[in-house]
This record gives sequence, structure tokens and C-alpha cells, in this order.
Amino acid sequence: MSGNSFGKIFTLTTFGESHGPAIGGIVDGCPPGLELCEEDMQVDLDRRKPGTSRYTTARREDDAVKILSGVFEGRTTGTSIGLLIQNTDQRSGDYANIKDRFRPGHADYTYTQKYGSRDYRGGGRSSARETAVRVAAGAIAKKYLKQAHGIEIHGFLSQLGPIKIEQVDYAEINNNPFFCPDVSKLDALDEYMRDLKKQGDSIGAKVTVVATNMPVGLGEPVFDRLDADIAHAMMGINAVKGVEMGDGFGVVEQKGSEHRDPLTPQGFASNHSGGVLGGISSGQDLLVSMALKPTSSISVPGETIDVDGNSIEVVTKGRHDPCVGIRAVPIAEAMLALTLMDHLLRHRAQNTGVNCTTPVIPAQVK
Amino acid sequence: MSGNSFGKIFTLTTFGESHGPAIGGIVDGCPPGLELCEEDMQVDLDRRKPGTSRYTTARREDDAVKILSGVFEGRTTGTSIGLLIQNTDQRSGDYANIKDRFRPGHADYTYTQKYGSRDYRGGGRSSARETAVRVAAGAIAKKYLKQAHGIEIHGFLSQLGPIKIEQVDYAEINNNPFFCPDVSKLDALDEYMRDLKKQGDSIGAKVTVVATNMPVGLGEPVFDRLDADIAHAMMGINAVKGVEMGDGFGVVEQKGSEHRDPLTPQGFASNHSGGVLGGISSGQDLLVSMALKPTSSISVPGETIDVDGNSIEVVTKGRHDPCVGIRAVPIAEAMLALTLMDHLLRHRAQNTGVNCTTPVIPAQVK
Amino acid sequence: MSGNSFGKIFTLTTFGESHGPAIGGIVDGCPPGLELCEEDMQVDLDRRKPGTSRYTTARREDDAVKILSGVFEGRTTGTSIGLLIQNTDQRSGDYANIKDRFRPGHADYTYTQKYGSRDYRGGGRSSARETAVRVAAGAIAKKYLKQAHGIEIHGFLSQLGPIKIEQVDYAEINNNPFFCPDVSKLDALDEYMRDLKKQGDSIGAKVTVVATNMPVGLGEPVFDRLDADIAHAMMGINAVKGVEMGDGFGVVEQKGSEHRDPLTPQGFASNHSGGVLGGISSGQDLLVSMALKPTSSISVPGETIDVDGNSIEVVTKGRHDPCVGIRAVPIAEAMLALTLMDHLLRHRAQNTGVNCTTPVIPAQVK
Amino acid sequence: MSGNSFGKIFTLTTFGESHGPAIGGIVDGCPPGLELCEEDMQVDLDRRKPGTSRYTTARREDDAVKILSGVFEGRTTGTSIGLLIQNTDQRSGDYANIKDRFRPGHADYTYTQKYGSRDYRGGGRSSARETAVRVAAGAIAKKYLKQAHGIEIHGFLSQLGPIKIEQVDYAEINNNPFFCPDVSKLDALDEYMRDLKKQGDSIGAKVTVVATNMPVGLGEPVFDRLDADIAHAMMGINAVKGVEMGDGFGVVEQKGSEHRDPLTPQGFASNHSGGVLGGISSGQDLLVSMALKPTSSISVPGETIDVDGNSIEVVTKGRHDPCVGIRAVPIAEAMLALTLMDHLLRHRAQNTGVNCTTPVIPAQVK
Repeated sequence: MSGNSFGKIFTLTTFGESHGPAIGGIVDGCPPGLELCEEDMQVDLDRRKPGTSRYTTARREDDAVKILSGVFEGRTTGTSIGLLIQNTDQRSGDYANIKDRFRPGHADYTYTQKYGSRDYRGGGRSSARETAVRVAAGAIAKKYLKQAHGIEIHGFLSQLGPIKIEQVDYAEINNNPFFCPDVSKLDALDEYMRDLKKQGDSIGAKVTVVATNMPVGLGEPVFDRLDADIAHAMMGINAVKGVEMGDGFGVVEQKGSEHRDPLTPQGFASNHSGGVLGGISSGQDLLVSMALKPTSSISVPGETIDVDGNSIEVVTKGRHDPCVGIRAVPIAEAMLALTLMDHLLRHRAQNTGVNCTTPVIPAQVK
Repeated sequence: MSGNSFGKIFTLTTFGESHGPAIGGIVDGCPPGLELCEEDMQVDLDRRKPGTSRYTTARREDDAVKILSGVFEGRTTGTSIGLLIQNTDQRSGDYANIKDRFRPGHADYTYTQKYGSRDYRGGGRSSARETAVRVAAGAIAKKYLKQAHGIEIHGFLSQLGPIKIEQVDYAEINNNPFFCPDVSKLDALDEYMRDLKKQGDSIGAKVTVVATNMPVGLGEPVFDRLDADIAHAMMGINAVKGVEMGDGFGVVEQKGSEHRDPLTPQGFASNHSGGVLGGISSGQDLLVSMALKPTSSISVPGETIDVDGNSIEVVTKGRHDPCVGIRAVPIAEAMLALTLMDHLLRHRAQNTGVNCTTPVIPAQVK
Repeated sequence: MSGNSFGKIFTLTTFGESHGPAIGGIVDGCPPGLELCEEDMQVDLDRRKPGTSRYTTARREDDAVKILSGVFEGRTTGTSIGLLIQNTDQRSGDYANIKDRFRPGHADYTYTQKYGSRDYRGGGRSSARETAVRVAAGAIAKKYLKQAHGIEIHGFLSQLGPIKIEQVDYAEINNNPFFCPDVSKLDALDEYMRDLKKQGDSIGAKVTVVATNMPVGLGEPVFDRLDADIAHAMMGINAVKGVEMGDGFGVVEQKGSEHRDPLTPQGFASNHSGGVLGGISSGQDLLVSMALKPTSSISVPGETIDVDGNSIEVVTKGRHDPCVGIRAVPIAEAMLALTLMDHLLRHRAQNTGVNCTTPVIPAQVK
Repeated sequence: MSGNSFGKIFTLTTFGESHGPAIGGIVDGCPPGLELCEEDMQVDLDRRKPGTSRYTTARREDDAVKILSGVFEGRTTGTSIGLLIQNTDQRSGDYANIKDRFRPGHADYTYTQKYGSRDYRGGGRSSARETAVRVAAGAIAKKYLKQAHGIEIHGFLSQLGPIKIEQVDYAEINNNPFFCPDVSKLDALDEYMRDLKKQGDSIGAKVTVVATNMPVGLGEPVFDRLDADIAHAMMGINAVKGVEMGDGFGVVEQKGSEHRDPLTPQGFASNHSGGVLGGISSGQDLLVSMALKPTSSISVPGETIDVDGNSIEVVTKGRHDPCVGIRAVPIAEAMLALTLMDHLLRHRAQNTGVNCTTPVIPAQVK
């Protein structure tokens, strides 16, 4: 039972490989009447697309998305939305040399064992190329969430290797190629990345996504809690190895008297929980963080085996990101948007008479 | 669309509140022919059940599970398995005083906002009481996984507040009330918990679950990767605020040359990945960790509001665990077992002809 | 992937065998705030239950349903509703003789082949005993549909063997043991059934279910059309071999000019379609019919084989309905109610802003 | 929750409108290793495509399908298969006149009421144009079923208006434009259709689909019985108003002694059941029939209303089939293939150890 669909009510199903003719997807369950055009998606696709700075892969893809259905006279019709993105800059020849070997840290070995064979060109289906479709679909969700509830989603780099972001200014995020909200760190990031490139190595990163203007009430206990579904969404992004809500792993050393967020007539007095209580959104900002591993495609030689089990050395060529965490920012935003959209519709299905937008108290003490 | 079902092919659906007459569930999709009796489940239920040590709540529940269907002449029939556990030690009177107030750090506020009202007795559906059913169902999955593939699941406490476990001896886990695999830490844990009790406070914890003898090939990219579904399962456990695979958040500061696990003819030379590559199990041990917040039910007074939005002070009475992380160990094992079982059947559905149990190389260098 | 769940948003999952200790189910996704008690379900359970007339099996079951969760202070809470019905009149001894043989027309052979073994006591899971749970759950859906939209569901016997109902008076349905809406046929039915009993044989039947006061807009093309999901629901009832919407198989000989229902400012001028156009409800009455085969458990000797493939003669003892179509009436009502409930919530999830209850025209010309 | 996906394990999700740029779909869950190319699908697409005889619409579409992913070096990889068919012969201008009116017997009224607006060009999403994608996907299923189990699927016209087919010769089906298996009826069909065309009217039809070489054991009680899922699949085809298994509505007047199929050491002695017992395939031929209404797009004037509720007369122009039942034959085959494929994988998921292909007895007495 292949897992190429995301969501239960607002769903995205995707197809496509890194070096096939095209990638694409189908968004099903979008409410009718939403104004939608290709430019709405292109903005985020351009943020994710490769080849835009020296810190990302040199592969050039326009990532121009086409809407094939589900929109009529500028508005969604409520029927399924077909999305298509042509692949234009495949250089499959780059991959002939990995046909018979398993790159360490990649999915080559596991895909081959699972399916009996694999599309070795650029990782085939396991390539992050596929995430472009998620970004396109996520843009639809973002637009609806903004219009229906004022919900906004802000993703940013919160750490790259040893460099930790200290100040968060949403206005700066899109002004630099790192999606860094702290201008005081830009020089350090630039320098670090130059050094890394010289070494031919790669580095891990931490990415944070915040949703503001959240309604109270999203999340479906006991299994499909909002945070559980967010964890599923984020851990499903290539290279993610950890997910946190609010204080995350910091809670291990916290006491109850310290962790629990007091409710006051003016709103919650703190946000250790990250905006979720009992698996349901509290109206506070959703705070989600994730850890992304360093890409395994580096020019530092590594030890591996060929398909017959013989020991060999591998040096990954091809065009790769030295820090996959950077371009993960718009992907993480998209996955959060898709998750919230699905939960908004799930909530509506069961709770028509309950107005989740008029909470007893304001979300947060200002 | 309520979220009371877990899994896509091997599914568990649960019902029941903390202070209702009973809790229970339905396991659907269990392969026929598995020997199964109530004792198989009772072992794990007894590990989770309250009232067994001074470190857990004083509520006494036998947690005696009854099989109502799906088993005939000692073996599963392939039809749905009905499970029932009577509640016997409800003291709902304890909760009359919280009827009109929202306990901070609890789901009281969010349930009320979502559904328009709530069962305030002991948290109702949001109580961890419900997890007893998960433990019962998880025991079925555990038994099958062991018999069909030799897969074993070991959960343990890896940190409690400031106390970090340093040695892991699976044989010790069930010999102490902390599920602690490191005997050298038992005194420190005992002392810490006594102090905590005096303070009337609670503490966070980190729990680790490991699956050994894993087959290669479980996981369904691109969205239902094995690690993504594990993250969903673990973040869906009460009080969990973070989930990690392998090195988890440690990868943020790692380089690619350091993180990627070399493949050798004798097996993988390291296990930074935690047993998953590209969302598919690699045959190495699955390494999963999670952070659990300190329970918010403490006798330290806290600030909150009543249902009319007025400021009040709350002191939680009732019977509670000072560290919910401890009893989460069998729950985390159960959720991992349910996830693996579902993925094993999902894999089989599509890949009958592919034998995921004969990998090219052994799992790990011994 | 066992199929013991029904519905996508409003779901029912069931368990239980004919001769196990109990049957039951879990209703998930019920809107919060609905007044609900056991008596609401008992009315329909009593209509379905065996042993109430000489035309049905002599097995006596109280079919007393217990609500175990999801209802607090008399109203649904929005969480999962656990339902339990004890089996009280099992006579498993009756079935010892069929342990090693496959009754013709029954599921004995197919269950054994599918699962490798079977619970032979009274058909185990394949017995219609399981449908009692559907009737209980259907009563919840019926109540909600009535309160939220005024939708009412009327099931009745429309043909039994050669006897066709000619007049439909809903008020008569529950006044006779045949669920017959045409009092002029009661004597003929009684006489036919007496003769049948003497012969030790059984007979087929046709059952019709009508939903009135339907909103416009229920149904999810292209695959989950309302009529497609109704067909799934009805064909999933034991013994059903055919399902029709509106004119059903009568359309084969109709012309387009005859079949299409004219729209007029006063409503649709006819209802050949049975209330569905393009898979979406039109606001007209839903007209659903189904054919039920004669039960295969009869005392007329039949030819079959034993589990080793040897030819033998079988005479079915035990206690059985000579016309299973009769007791299928409340089951068919329940399945229609469950289907409509699921579709109502599915519609709401996606179409919040669209008011499906204010159609352009009235449903029907009066 | 839009219903544009079919199947639970082997799934098809589709998009596209009659007059949009393209239609397409994603097949997920296909076993890896199946040889597959576009020609495999084109054969069935050519059987369904319009413009091939004077008995179908004059719209000309090549219906050339492109595989965009999921196939590498001529074999399926186990990942999602993207399918695309360009629309080439849209004449949307034909539909400007129906923009403001609801054609009787069509989905115009219900789509508008459900979604608040509609794509009026050729019926938009409600057009049978969308079924081309089902036929393409069905061809993949057909190929796998044939290779893995020898299962073959034969669809044919069994009645058109008053003309009933009497002999079934599978070899004749594709030799005439009616998919008629009885050559003795071809002249009558031709004459009938000519007369109909003169009248500007349309006619209903009955279509039968048979699957041969069935394995025993497919079907997932109690809700997802094989026959229930077949009913869902067939009733989900445009214009279908009734579905039957085996004797179908004929059972209403049958006695149990007549209906039940005797088991003998040489196989079942008859096939009244249509190959399903208790919702599980018996190994006998699957016999499925469906009734298709006459198309409502005819040149005979009809009564309807405009979008403001005013009475108007409508004469449908555009290009339409006088008997949609004819071209439904390859669609019905495709839907049966998709259903069987999904159930084959569902069965495998749970019943690995059970060999459903070695039944106790042969399927049928020869």
C-alpha cells in the first residue's frame, strides 16, 4: 500500500521521479470558490527551486506549475485539481556510475531491497525533486487558511551546524538565500558555507515553522492529534530526523510547575506547549521545529558496497545542496499548511455547530 | 472526522473515558492462525497499569482484558478482534471541583472549545487511561512480529529530569519500576522521585524504543515513510513533545562525512540513521526516542481561569503520576509494534514477490 | 485489510460472532451535543431482533445495547461511542454437525478457503447476527439526520416471492411482522409463509428504502457518488444480490425522453432517477430497492461436500428465518442512515460556505 | 471530502474535465516488476474512445495516454504511476447556451447546488470523458490479474432497449461496435439504433461483465464484501441505475432449494450466486450486470428551468451517444479490474500464509 497520498479530507497525491518527464499531483477536497491561479503557487515554487544561489544545487529547473483541472473562471470548483511540472534539466548521464552501487546515507539500498529494483537516475522517486509538488499544493492550502481564518505560516532556518539564530524577524526571511530571520547571522552563515564547499562536505540544520492566528479546536484525538499529524508531515520530509512541538526535548528537564502554561483572562501567559494541548490547537502560535541531516551526496570519499555486496569507494558527483536544510524551509511550510488545511476540514465535518473561532480567552498575553 | 483509529491495514479503533464503565477497542486485519489468549496481552497491561509502585498514581485498576471475538479455538480467525477492559476504580467525585475550571497544561480548555462541552471526570477521553487499550492491541502485534520475523521491541527510560541513562542492558528493564536499563542509576532515580514528591511537583523524561531483527523494506514513501508513521504514533502518545530517529537533533551539528553510515560486506558500520533510509527500514535496529513533558497535575498551585474566563488558582488533586514518562514505556513499545505491524502488512500487499528478509548484506557489523 | 469499518468520516467499526460472548461496535465522528440514550437504539433493535414472530428464527436475543462511552450527561461528546450487545441464546451445540462440512449457499466454504479455518458455530462472523450492531449505530445516524435536516427513512417489504406490494402506507409498516406497507397483502403473505414452512423451504424478497426531506448536494463524485456508496452499503447486507436506484433495471427499456425528470419552478415533475443526479442528491426522495436471496438454511436436503472434498447430503438444522428479506428491513434502513450521515459530514467538510438546504426549486411537484 | 480516489490499497485518483486541457490520474500501489508500456493501455482506450462508429458521439479524441512516472526500463517500480491524456477536440462553444440552464437528467442542477457554481462546458467533471482515465488504469490491473492469476475479464452488451442478447460468444465481442457477444442480434441492433437516431431520442441498456479463472478468497467482510465493492464500482459509472450479482433480482421469486448452488467433488453444480458467497469469491466466474439509463442529451425538446428558476424548454445539442450503455462496456471491465486488483492486494496483506489459489474443489462442474 504505497504512501503517495497525504491527508484524509484535503488530500494531495503525487507522482514523479527526479529524472522522468514530469512530476505532478492531484489536490482533492479543496473548498469551491477559492480564487486560484498558477502565480499563487509559483511564488513558493520559486522560493524552493534549485539554482537560485551558490548555496544550493546548480540544477536549473523553472518549476513552472500548470493547473490542469479543478479551476474554472478563476475559482476552484470543488473538484480535483490536477497539477503538472515538467522536468527540464535532467542530466541522467551523471548517474550512470551509481547504477550498480548503493550510495551511503541514501535510499538506494532500501529501495532496491523493498521493490526488487530502483530508478537510479538522481534517486528516482526518493529524490527531493518530488517535494516541488508539495510546495505547489501547500500554496493552495496557505491561501485558503489565510482567507478563511487569517492563519499565516512562517518558516525559517533556526540553526545551521553550530550557528544558532537568536532573533526572529519574519520580515527578513525572504531577503536572504538562507531563509534566515536574523540578519546578524548572515555573514557567519556565508563564511561557514564557503568553508564547507571547499571541504566538499555538507552540514545539518534546524528549521522552525510557526503558524499564527490559529483557531482553537483543530486536532482529532486520540490518534490524529494535531501534533501527531504535524510530526508525520515533518518526519516525511526528506532528511528530517527529529520533530519538536513547543519546548520539544527541552521538556525532559522541566518540572510541571515550570512547563504548564498559565491561563489568564488576557490569554495564555506563556507558550511552552507550542500551541497544542491534548492534541488540539489552543489558539496560541503553533511552534514546530525539525532537525535535518546533512546531505550524504558529498565529494568526500565514502565506503560502500556494490549491488553484489562487494566493498567499494564512492564519491558522489551530480549537483547537490551542501545543506538540504535551507531549501527545506518552504517545504516545511507547505507540509504544515497541508496538515492544517486537512484538520480544518476534519473539524468542520464533525463540529458544524461549534464555533472554534470564538475562544473563551484571547490566544496570548500581549 | 474523529481520529480514534490507528493504522491503515492493521488497524486499532478505541473507545472509552477515564471514568466511564469500560474502555476497549477493535483490532482489524490481524492475520489468521496466530495463537492468542488474554494472558498474551495481560503481561504488558500489568507493566503499564497504575498502582504498582510509589512512583505512579495510586488509582488501582486490574486492567483485565477480555477478548470478545476474532479468536476461535485459541487462534485468530482473521476477523475483527473485540477487546474490553472494565473500569473498576473510578472516583469521579474527585473531579467535581474541576467541572467549571480549565486545568493549565491539560486538554480541558481545548476539548471544551472544540466540542462545546467536555467529560470533566478525570480528563474523560483525554486521559491516558485510554492507552491501556493500545497496550493490549500492541501485544498482539508484538507477538506476530516476533513469530513471523523475530522482531523484538525494547522500550526503556533513557532520561528522567537531569538523570541520564548511560548503559543499556535490556535484561534489567523489567526488574525495576522505572523501566531503567542501567542499574547504576536506580538509587539516583529513587532519591530524585522522593524529593519531587515532597515538592508536589512533576518532571519530564525521555523514553527510547528499539526494534531489533528488523526486516529490510518496511515503509511507504513518499508520505508514509516508516519514520513518518513512527513519528505520528509517538507524538500521538499523551505528553510527548518531541520525536527522534537515530541521532535525531544531534544531526544539526553533524557533517555529511560523519553522519552517513558506511555499508560494508559485513553490514552497516554505524547506525546514525536509526535504521531508516529514505523512509524505508534498512535492517538495522530501529532507534526511536521521545520527550515527555512533566504532568500538569501537581499540588503546586497554578494560575488559570474558570469557564467564564475569570482568573482563579488551581491545585490539582486526584491521583497522578509524578513522571508520566515512566509508564509511557510500554505504551511507546505498543505504538511501535502497531506501526511495524501495519507496515509489514502494507509491504506484503504490494510486494508479494519481493523477499524483504534476504538482504544483500547483514544488518550490522557485529 | 479486513473490511469491518463502514464510512469515511462518520464511521462504524464492528466485531463479534454469532456464538461468541458479545457483539459490538464503535461509532466515530458523531457530532457533539446530540441527545442520546440506549432507548433511542433499542426501538430499532427490537424491530430487527429474532424471535418476535412465527416468521422469523426462534432464537431469542434481548439485543439490549449498552453505551460504554462517548455520551456524557445525556449528550454525545464528539468522541468515539462504544456499543455492546451480549449474546444470550447461543446454542452452539446445534452446529457441531456442520463443523466438517460446507453448507451450500453459505459462507462456510469461502471463509475456510480465505482464512484457512473458520468459526463454524452459527456461521461465526458471517452470520447476520452481526447486523444488530449496524441497526444500533444506524439509529444514532437516523436521530441526527432527523434533527439536523428533518430527513426520515422508511424501509418496507416490497415483494416476497410472487407477492408484490401495490400500495405504500408508511403508517402501516410497523403494524405487522412483515414490515409490509400494504395491508391488503397481509393475508396472502401469512398464507404463503405457512405453506413455505410446511415445505421446509425459504423464499427471496425485495426490500425498498426511501429517504424523505433530503437536502440537495450529498454525494462525492466521481467515485463516491451517493448512489455508489448506497450500492456498497446495501450489497454489503447479508443475502443481497441486487441494488437499484429509482427505476433501476426498468431503465434498460426506457427512452431518454421518458426517463429524464423535468425540472419545473414547482419542483421536479417526476422521480425516475430516484433522487440522485450525477451522483449527487437532488432533493427528491431517495428511492432504493434491493433483492434478497432465500436463506440457504432449509430442511430440504441438499448436496454438498465435507472439508475433505467428499460428497455428502446436508439438512440444515438450527433456527433460521424462512425469508431473511423480512428482517432485512431495519438493517437496510440503518445502512442508508449510516451512508447519508457519512455523506452529510463529507459535504460539510468541504462546502461550509455553500448552503445545500436552500435549493433553487422545491424538491417535487406536490 | 471529495471522492476522486478509488480503492484502498491499489488506488486510482483522477482529475480532469470534459473541456479542460487534459485529464489524468495516479495509480498507486502497483506491484513492482510488471512489464508496462503505453500500448498496454491504448488497446482499451481505443475500445472506449468516441467517434469510432455512427452509434457514438462524433467528438474525436485520440485518447493517447502518456506514462509520466512509476515505470523504469519497461517495468513498474512500485512507486506511483502518473497518467496523462490531452483533450484535443473540445468545442466549448457548443455549451454557451446551457450556461444559464439546468439540463434535465443531467448533473447541472446538483453540481450547482452542491458547489455553488459549475464548469458548464460539456458537463465539466460530471462528463463521462473522465472515464477514459479509469479505462487506462483498469488496463494495468487487467494485465497484472492475468499474469498473476490468469484472471480474465469479459464485458459485453446484454440488452439494448427491448433487444436481449441470447448467446454469449466472447470471441465476437470486439468484432462489432456494440460489444455484442451474439452475432444474431447485430442486424436488429443496427436497425434499432437507426430508428432511434431519426427520433432524436436515446435508449437504456444492460451490460454484463464476467471474470473467469477467479481465485477463491477475495473479499473483506463484513462491509467490504467483494460484491459490495463491485456494486460501489459499477454504480459509480455514469448513468448506471442498478447492479446485480449472479441471479440478481431474479432471486426475489426463487426458493432456497432452487437458489443455493450445490458443492460437488467436481465443483459447484450451478452458479446462481454469481461467484460470491458471504462476500468472498468462491472461485466460480464472477457474474455482474448493470442497468444504464438512456442519455438525457437528446434533441427531443424537454422541460426545465434556468438558474433563476424560470421555466424554459431545452434541446440538447453538442455531440452525444444515443446509447451510453455501449461505450460503458470497457469502463465496466476497467472498474471490475480495479476492484479485483484492490481486493487481491487486500487479501495478500492479511493472508500471506494462506494460499487462496488451491481450493478444496474445482470451481465449476465442466
